[in-house]
Amino acid sequence: MKTLHVNLGERSYPIHIGEGIVDRLGDWFGERQLSRRSPLMIVSDQAVADLHLPRVRAVLEEAGYRVATAVVPSGETSKSLAMLEKLVGEALKAGLDRRSAIVALGGGVVGDLAGFVAASYMRGIRYVQMPTTILAHDSSVGGKVAVNHPLAKNIIGAFHQPEMVVFELSFLRTLPEREIRAGYAEVIKHALIADAEFFRWVDEQAERLLALDPAAVEHALHTGCRIKADIVSADERENGLRAILNVGHTIGHALEAVAGYGELLHGEAISIGMAGETLLAVHYGCPASVHRETVRVLRKFGLPVGLPPGLDPERIMRAMGHDKKFREGKAVFALPTGIGGAAVQEGVPAELVRDILQQLMREA
Amino acid sequence: MKTLHVNLGERSYPIHIGEGIVDRLGDWFGERQLSRRSPLMIVSDQAVADLHLPRVRAVLEEAGYRVATAVVPSGETSKSLAMLEKLVGEALKAGLDRRSAIVALGGGVVGDLAGFVAASYMRGIRYVQMPTTILAHDSSVGGKVAVNHPLAKNIIGAFHQPEMVVFELSFLRTLPEREIRAGYAEVIKHALIADAEFFRWVDEQAERLLALDPAAVEHALHTGCRIKADIVSADERENGLRAILNVGHTIGHALEAVAGYGELLHGEAISIGMAGETLLAVHYGCPASVHRETVRVLRKFGLPVGLPPGLDPERIMRAMGHDKKFREGKAVFALPTGIGGAAVQEGVPAELVRDILQQLMREA
Repeated sequence: MKTLHVNLGERSYPIHIGEGIVDRLGDWFGERQLSRRSPLMIVSDQAVADLHLPRVRAVLEEAGYRVATAVVPSGETSKSLAMLEKLVGEALKAGLDRRSAIVALGGGVVGDLAGFVAASYMRGIRYVQMPTTILAHDSSVGGKVAVNHPLAKNIIGAFHQPEMVVFELSFLRTLPEREIRAGYAEVIKHALIADAEFFRWVDEQAERLLALDPAAVEHALHTGCRIKADIVSADERENGLRAILNVGHTIGHALEAVAGYGELLHGEAISIGMAGETLLAVHYGCPASVHRETVRVLRKFGLPVGLPPGLDPERIMRAMGHDKKFREGKAVFALPTGIGGAAVQEGVPAELVRDILQQLMREA
Repeated sequence: MKTLHVNLGERSYPIHIGEGIVDRLGDWFGERQLSRRSPLMIVSDQAVADLHLPRVRAVLEEAGYRVATAVVPSGETSKSLAMLEKLVGEALKAGLDRRSAIVALGGGVVGDLAGFVAASYMRGIRYVQMPTTILAHDSSVGGKVAVNHPLAKNIIGAFHQPEMVVFELSFLRTLPEREIRAGYAEVIKHALIADAEFFRWVDEQAERLLALDPAAVEHALHTGCRIKADIVSADERENGLRAILNVGHTIGHALEAVAGYGELLHGEAISIGMAGETLLAVHYGCPASVHRETVRVLRKFGLPVGLPPGLDPERIMRAMGHDKKFREGKAVFALPTGIGGAAVQEGVPAELVRDILQQLMREA
């Protein structure tokens, strides 16, 4: 088991990663002084709840907690204001008060949704992240929580740091293969933007990682979380440095919006986004080998690197106009500068982005 | 004109109160470095927009700002997640980005709603409060923003401090008489919980205040804001002291919920709540004269001090069960300890509250 500390002053918190660690939840909740007199609410989605909710609930009840549960449909469509309203209703009925905490048991959708419920319920109560996907290692660090608006993804949200993150690796074994592959997209992105040595390691260990070898997965998640935590600690409110985490996301988010939330997995959209944005980076001085290497590694993980058929580049362009990474009418992209480095590029012209999308169509 | 500074470290902000000060908006926006390159959005309600929106818009456009506007129906029902979704859509269509600001032009409903839009849009952008009611002097200090849930008032929200508050006194002259009266309920509460001398002054000046004499109103709003600002500065996140601001609100919020949001004005509900909670305070050692004096002053301002006919005390009791001031199953009340002082009282039994409600029925 490994523990990583995210340093954010009085909002610092630990990330525990390991096999069989769910049994230690009660101790850790006690250490963080989570009240046993106020009810907790575990929020999960249907697929995860069927598999893992009874165990988590039992561990917490044995530790003396009163536990309510709320289960939402699986998939991105649950990240809505309608679901926020439903969960707040459940929290009220369960008697959650200001000393209560919410436990987000699931992937990124559950983490973002339950995290925003915690951020806004009574103007903010505490919450614990229990990610059940590889991809969620990314959203579990940094305190960004949100729901979607029909016109834009993640546009309604908050910065709200969790009390702790508990990454139980045995939960990953129930993931469908497609989600395992997609989960590594953010791991590859973290390597690409910040750590050339880790990029090589991920490339070499692809087989063990896809087979969920515990030691390899533990190292990959710990390193991915560390990279993100270092960046977030330096820029909690996303004023500068943190923007480099958006590599692959400007195109990726637009793809998700146009394909319909949930059609493309987030990791798949980010993978295509990375293929496109490394290509874009070449126009700003990044070596062409960075694009080739990134695409090669993404393919090794079975991830898509071209536009799926039927996705119209013009609709993707329009969807990018609503992306919050556009500032004052100009396109801003976070682009790699090499393997292990990235920077923000302002004033990227629309024509160039359109060209890139055309090239991505041909790669499909 | 008077300016008050709310001291909250890097989130400190000024409150400007005066007649004809709307013309200085451009200067003040410049001082706060609000970007002229990103659009602003003024949020208002129909009644206020008809009267004052063109002037505010013109002042800001003359100062070089691009200004979008969004108008919501007047009344408490606009404080909903549905309206949040609508306003976020308007903000997206108007191209608001992370450097944009929202201007909340209206009473407490507009301030709470537009403030929560600002708190959650792109995870938080800046906003300016322009209160157009006397009552809103209260909600304009402290950064508490929220919308309602069908089961509870103000339950979904955030702490989000404004860039500044601009209180243009000439706007108050368009208020209906009922709203002027209701507006003074929070002024009386601020006097009651913190300043015996101000309580006497409010009592003596009732006539001038109700006639909207500018010097009297300026002093009343400045002092009310100062009392609240002192309390909020000492306890921004409402962990302790700030709870005394809730005098009159535990019963008051329940009354609003049962009467149907918007049937009773907030100030009227708080007035009845103060009548009840000063009576409750007597059971905990507060002199009976405090209840008598408070009721006398409230009546002088034409405010209600008894339960409106048709409001069932049992429904009010149930509504209080969902109020967020109940912690771990026990009723907590903020109660006056004398004229000019208040404290939190834990463990108030339901029977006693039921008795108080019965007495309030007879006062109607």
